[in-house]
Amino acid sequence: MADMQTAQPHEAAQAGITEWRRIVTKLDWDRLPDLLTENVTYRSPADLEPYQGKDTMAAILRVVFAVMEDFTYLRRFSSGSGYVLEFSTRVGDTRLTGADIVEFDEDGRITDFTVMMRPAGAVQTLAAEAARRMATG
Amino acid sequence: MADMQTAQPHEAAQAGITEWRRIVTKLDWDRLPDLLTENVTYRSPADLEPYQGKDTMAAILRVVFAVMEDFTYLRRFSSGSGYVLEFSTRVGDTRLTGADIVEFDEDGRITDFTVMMRPAGAVQTLAAEAARRMATG
Repeated sequence: MADMQTAQPHEAAQAGITEWRRIVTKLDWDRLPDLLTENVTYRSPADLEPYQGKDTMAAILRVVFAVMEDFTYLRRFSSGSGYVLEFSTRVGDTRLTGADIVEFDEDGRITDFTVMMRPAGAVQTLAAEAARRMATG
Repeated sequence: MADMQTAQPHEAAQAGITEWRRIVTKLDWDRLPDLLTENVTYRSPADLEPYQGKDTMAAILRVVFAVMEDFTYLRRFSSGSGYVLEFSTRVGDTRLTGADIVEFDEDGRITDFTVMMRPAGAVQTLAAEAARRMATG
């Protein structure tokens, strides 16, 4: 088995994750596309098939973060080119925890963004509310 | 914001994750309790409330890994005291990806094990099948 140590993230990834956290903190979604590669892959906690493209991902996250309340990052893990950011949040009275798995290219742009959340029933509550808001504009 | 570099896992954590991966590869569940602290916390992808205790966690994982097929670890991330191991698996025709978030104490024993999986609907399929097998022995 490979060595169980893990490399530090490259400098562009460090800058990228700092900008991501700034955007989340400020809800500055207009700046999110600049942080994404054109064909970024977004994997939601609700659907197996990924979404493709920066505009699609930015539109989804803007709505999802409007549904979530008390969003707080907890533990952080890293690899040579990415991070896992654990978080807690709630939707109404429903509490969830989750993890953003974020991969960066050498320019510090996000190439792949995967979200996993638990418990599964609460993910479906969140997804349904987000879908309702997207459908009604 | 804190420095976005992340420390290497301590040596006991490195040894612990190596033993964890050996157990998963060999399905050597009889040895799992030795790798867990007495009051280990297990957080499942299906339930918000955690499970407590090494025997409880070992019993759950033995059943869940019997339900899952083609379990394969993918990316790895780390902190000073733990790891995130991303994986893919399936239950029948249903594909899932997930992440094990594993925290170690200074003796290399697991203190907290959190599992997140996606998509949410497939998690409920897996949880229902695991519950059925536990109920029927």
